[in-house]
Amino acid sequence: MVGKMKAYREMTKQELEQEVVALKAEYKKFQDMELSLNMARGKPCMEQLDLSMGMMDALYSGADLSCEDGTDCRNYGVLTGIREAKELIGAMMENKPENIIIYGNSSLNVMYDTVSRAYTHGVMGSTPWCRLPRVRFLCPVPGYDRHFAITEYFGIDMIPVPMTPEGPNMDLVEQLVANDDTIKGIWCVPKYSNPQGYSYSDDTVRRFARLKPAARDFRIFWDNAYGIHHLYDDNQDYLIEILEECRKAGNPDMVYKFASTSKITFPGSGIAAIATSRNNLEDIETQLSRQTIGHDKVNQLRHVRFFKDLEGMKAHMRKHADVIRPKFEAIEETLEANLDGLGIGEWTKPKGGYFISFDSMEGCAKRIVDRAKKAGVTMTGAGATWPYGKDPHDSNIRIAPTYPPLDDIRLAAQLFTVCVRLVSAEKLLEEVKEAC
Amino acid sequence: MVGKMKAYREMTKQELEQEVVALKAEYKKFQDMELSLNMARGKPCMEQLDLSMGMMDALYSGADLSCEDGTDCRNYGVLTGIREAKELIGAMMENKPENIIIYGNSSLNVMYDTVSRAYTHGVMGSTPWCRLPRVRFLCPVPGYDRHFAITEYFGIDMIPVPMTPEGPNMDLVEQLVANDDTIKGIWCVPKYSNPQGYSYSDDTVRRFARLKPAARDFRIFWDNAYGIHHLYDDNQDYLIEILEECRKAGNPDMVYKFASTSKITFPGSGIAAIATSRNNLEDIETQLSRQTIGHDKVNQLRHVRFFKDLEGMKAHMRKHADVIRPKFEAIEETLEANLDGLGIGEWTKPKGGYFISFDSMEGCAKRIVDRAKKAGVTMTGAGATWPYGKDPHDSNIRIAPTYPPLDDIRLAAQLFTVCVRLVSAEKLLEEVKEAC
Repeated sequence: MVGKMKAYREMTKQELEQEVVALKAEYKKFQDMELSLNMARGKPCMEQLDLSMGMMDALYSGADLSCEDGTDCRNYGVLTGIREAKELIGAMMENKPENIIIYGNSSLNVMYDTVSRAYTHGVMGSTPWCRLPRVRFLCPVPGYDRHFAITEYFGIDMIPVPMTPEGPNMDLVEQLVANDDTIKGIWCVPKYSNPQGYSYSDDTVRRFARLKPAARDFRIFWDNAYGIHHLYDDNQDYLIEILEECRKAGNPDMVYKFASTSKITFPGSGIAAIATSRNNLEDIETQLSRQTIGHDKVNQLRHVRFFKDLEGMKAHMRKHADVIRPKFEAIEETLEANLDGLGIGEWTKPKGGYFISFDSMEGCAKRIVDRAKKAGVTMTGAGATWPYGKDPHDSNIRIAPTYPPLDDIRLAAQLFTVCVRLVSAEKLLEEVKEAC
Repeated sequence: MVGKMKAYREMTKQELEQEVVALKAEYKKFQDMELSLNMARGKPCMEQLDLSMGMMDALYSGADLSCEDGTDCRNYGVLTGIREAKELIGAMMENKPENIIIYGNSSLNVMYDTVSRAYTHGVMGSTPWCRLPRVRFLCPVPGYDRHFAITEYFGIDMIPVPMTPEGPNMDLVEQLVANDDTIKGIWCVPKYSNPQGYSYSDDTVRRFARLKPAARDFRIFWDNAYGIHHLYDDNQDYLIEILEECRKAGNPDMVYKFASTSKITFPGSGIAAIATSRNNLEDIETQLSRQTIGHDKVNQLRHVRFFKDLEGMKAHMRKHADVIRPKFEAIEETLEANLDGLGIGEWTKPKGGYFISFDSMEGCAKRIVDRAKKAGVTMTGAGATWPYGKDPHDSNIRIAPTYPPLDDIRLAAQLFTVCVRLVSAEKLLEEVKEAC
């Protein structure tokens, strides 16, 4: 597995056969280790979770659970969230407290409810989507499977739009949105995108804000899940704030922005939020007042008392970065050491977020993920990063390095590169044989 | 205001006029007190909230936040709730853990989502309700305004069904449900009902379980909000468990049962749950897996560690009862002392729950509530206990005694009876004058 950097496509049939034999032996060694590692989902590891244990002491039986304005957080009420939480999350999202609703524990739930509300009741007075013969969403690909699962569940047609390192192909987005009023939305992870770790360029964000959608009820679903999730102190991506940009462009109501503390404190026990225009908020609040009396204010207060302010959050995020940065680097080093120059894969080198995106040769992703699985390493299912789980190139694989311990990450990355090489060599051999 | 027990309808015009003059003077005294009391909603009071402060210490930074099965509650996952929480809430709901999904902080939210899911995707494969020309719900009246607000929001027609001390008029329910397949549901608060505090009799529950609905997707929405919310140790209502009763009757899938700890620990920071058949659960889980990765497991664990088991919960509920029972009794004593024998009002005497239901003479409820409001006591809006906020008799008023301190409750009840008498006397005077 060392030093050989001849591109696979330049190999003779015999060289490929030798490669396969060597790689199978290598693969066998991994199988014998009986690994059981999971790189499927963007889950924080135990060391990261430990960072937030102090939050369990932020409130205690002797504490006053009142807000600054006197509201008793223990009782019913305050539909849109306590002021302090709006200020904290507002600072994190770069939005004013006035533009924010604090929800429960899951921004995915907020996104689902947002699509569901548009489906049942429309958007700011538009025809409910369930009454329309066809509703479509643009889906930058590769993208986030749980986004696609929501739109699929509501029977919304999904149109893939290619991602670039600058963001989605905006020529295509502009053209589609302007000419087709069945297109009601687009799923975006604008910063440290899932799975690439790309951040939308200034130009991309400005073009988003200046879209001229044919549909009055078109909305950008701006899932800023990784807004402060940097891996490095000195080398960070910057994203233009979309609400303000939309306002300046005369499209104040065109965006729903989502965020949460799921990957800041505890996944599943954090707080989620939407930031959007007052018009959209009024629309949402009409529905929300039927759905609930209010979200968990005690947990909102707990987060505020724990972090105090955005600086507290940023200091906390640096600790997260210290835990997961070595894992990202280990993956990248291994990919580079074992695959560079072979012409059988490309991968991203994100400066934040939770994923690395890997593109194999066409038609190899499923087999690579399958191979890895059979040697005890679970990756995100091949295809998951495309609408309906169907990657037309069968090439994209999402790598989630955060959860396993660092030593396991090294092993898993080694195995992964063996699988990539083995599957690629076998694929090329098949092609050579077919050509004969 | 003392000792005079002559029924108002037996009074002469002159007697009524004297009564009005005396009551106006009495009313003026209350106005001069500049009261500001709220009996509008079923909110626990501060003393009740203090009972659960120990829950803030149930988890702390040194605690192990793992489940018995090893699940780390801090991380993602476990869509339907941790086993311990299902056992605790299962014991509270009298259902098996296998029949339960633990949700977030609000059972109202669960009910909203249940209606919304039926609207967008149908029930166990039925036509989605949004595709049907007409969907109707039965609404026992008086009932809970937030239930009615959900069905109204989804454009579901609401048919009032009269309540009796035994539960809804079952002759009517059976007949309507059997003959009309547009009737898809019925809202029930079967124990210590909102607002009467009635509990459904054995016969009522058995007849519910044996309904023969024309609609395959008819469901009973069984909101058992006050299952363990007794006011007395020795004098409690008993309710037959509906899931088991439906199973025995060959209608295993006909009921969704809801509950929460909102009025056990902290409103807004508790845990909510649904209990239903495996078939229904599978239907729900299909949707739930799109909506969220999971609810707040840390808060689930917090509740389990705080209560330990159902006995812990019951002991806790006795403390609640000690706080609120005197408030209920103060209201009842005042109503009895000031209104008994006057023939201008009837009220319930619940053994649990959060409300007393008061029925004035026809056409008086709005004016009574308005009078009380103008003297500084806010009641639930008259009409709120009926679908669309329209009480055809303008007679029902919901009294929520829990929130204000006991002394304030006495004052508010005094004022309320003055308002009832004044409005009733004025009404009768108007009738006398019209008759002349």
